[in-house]
Amino acid sequence: MNESVKGQSQKTAVGVIGLGIMGAPIALNLVKSGYPVTVYNRTASKCTALQQAGARVAASPAGAAAESDVVIAVVSDTNDVEDVLFGPAGAVEGLTSGDVLIDMSTINPLASQRFAARLDEHGVDFLDAPVSGGQKGAENATLAIMVGGKQAAFERCSDILAAVGKTVVHVGPNGHGLLTKMVNQVTAATSLVAMAECMHLIRQTGVDPEKALQVILGGAARSGMLENYSPKVLQEDFAPGFKIKLMNKDLRIASELLQASEVELPTFATAREAFNSCEAEGMGELGVQGVFKAYSK
Amino acid sequence: MNESVKGQSQKTAVGVIGLGIMGAPIALNLVKSGYPVTVYNRTASKCTALQQAGARVAASPAGAAAESDVVIAVVSDTNDVEDVLFGPAGAVEGLTSGDVLIDMSTINPLASQRFAARLDEHGVDFLDAPVSGGQKGAENATLAIMVGGKQAAFERCSDILAAVGKTVVHVGPNGHGLLTKMVNQVTAATSLVAMAECMHLIRQTGVDPEKALQVILGGAARSGMLENYSPKVLQEDFAPGFKIKLMNKDLRIASELLQASEVELPTFATAREAFNSCEAEGMGELGVQGVFKAYSK
Repeated sequence: MNESVKGQSQKTAVGVIGLGIMGAPIALNLVKSGYPVTVYNRTASKCTALQQAGARVAASPAGAAAESDVVIAVVSDTNDVEDVLFGPAGAVEGLTSGDVLIDMSTINPLASQRFAARLDEHGVDFLDAPVSGGQKGAENATLAIMVGGKQAAFERCSDILAAVGKTVVHVGPNGHGLLTKMVNQVTAATSLVAMAECMHLIRQTGVDPEKALQVILGGAARSGMLENYSPKVLQEDFAPGFKIKLMNKDLRIASELLQASEVELPTFATAREAFNSCEAEGMGELGVQGVFKAYSK
Repeated sequence: MNESVKGQSQKTAVGVIGLGIMGAPIALNLVKSGYPVTVYNRTASKCTALQQAGARVAASPAGAAAESDVVIAVVSDTNDVEDVLFGPAGAVEGLTSGDVLIDMSTINPLASQRFAARLDEHGVDFLDAPVSGGQKGAENATLAIMVGGKQAAFERCSDILAAVGKTVVHVGPNGHGLLTKMVNQVTAATSLVAMAECMHLIRQTGVDPEKALQVILGGAARSGMLENYSPKVLQEDFAPGFKIKLMNKDLRIASELLQASEVELPTFATAREAFNSCEAEGMGELGVQGVFKAYSK
């Protein structure tokens, strides 16, 4: 960016590429925190609310990057990140040496490491910074953010990350934010299916669900998924929250990673099939607790 | 029992059949709480410590039952319970109408319901009352006890159960204590394997275990098994606690129940294979966190 614009604020100029259910509230929280924000979204109409809140709107990822010293990408999948970084009018065309690209998308860790290497050739630092906490976490700036990358780049961006998240952990070098997210999602998926199978078994045996759950939640078999979702399953409340189709996207990436690394996790692999069968049967828009429905057909 | 013995104490005379790692501390806690206790154990030498603590020693299950109004059986498996109840000089020969038999063993729920029906023919009430909390829970009288049976029988025994456990829940009719225990063990097993696969993936990806666990334990993927056992796995501490071979016994019973009920839990079934392969490879004496070793060969 040019120095005259930079001079308008003491805070770092931030670009946000991608204004979906996560990107829009992240950008809004940055505006509210006083950062000069430039946004780009493929569907331009989604920029209106941010523009009204005080953000500039760019016509391309390159345009957003040219106005900014730190650029946050928060899009859906590996191909989307590659496209907004290195595609036509991609961010790399607007980034200059010393800038930082923070990718908050949940994508393939190995691809992310390649993106980091490509940006490094331009003198641009890269942080893989996937989040958890969902739409509510983005809106309330309470996201957990797992960050991979150089210590100096992490420190430079720590105020920006603190403006959009609550638990911000620098877990290691490039790729390790995403690897940590993969470990989390793999564990979450198996735990969700354990919850679903527990609830199915409760129903099939006919034991009193409240009393059985009192015992289980009071002991070593307790889990966050049972605490969060067993009441919803009992009430047949399958509204999202975090959708099955988005969990499935993360699990596909995790499975690609496991395959590439020749790591076998048979119980996770079986759990994943329950999510796959739910999506195949048209339940992708349900919340993840809807995996229970794989058992109640 | 005869009235002259009964008159020696205001507290109910209690028999304890089976002085293993659970039965011995349960019997001792009853003696300490002032109950007149008569014990029986197949290997008579195990009765010595209880005798020194003030318990009577019987020569057979029938003998222990004849001295008692409430008899607790705490043995290993379904066949063992059948044997001490209905085998030669079994408890049924010493029980009289109005007595209560509490079975604290973890056995097949359907078999347990048949035992209840057979005792009912003799006017004897039956409670299936499996426990969780392990040897320490038995020693400290902090067991969780899941009780199935008639409300009146439960109430009659509630002081006795409170003397040996902390969380005592009457979950439903005969069999439902054991069904609840099965739901708990199934959920515990899948959660243990989710822990093991999480730790294996952490090791294989090379992410910092402490930082990754900080993220996971702070979010929805948290579980009691990760909290309890991930530090032990990191320290390669596989000492029992609860042994793999005992977990496997419970899982075999659960699997028999699932098969008889035509309930399919594919993720649990896959998790169970990890425990089976551990025992097949001679790791049955390890604590349940040793299931991690199924992944680190």
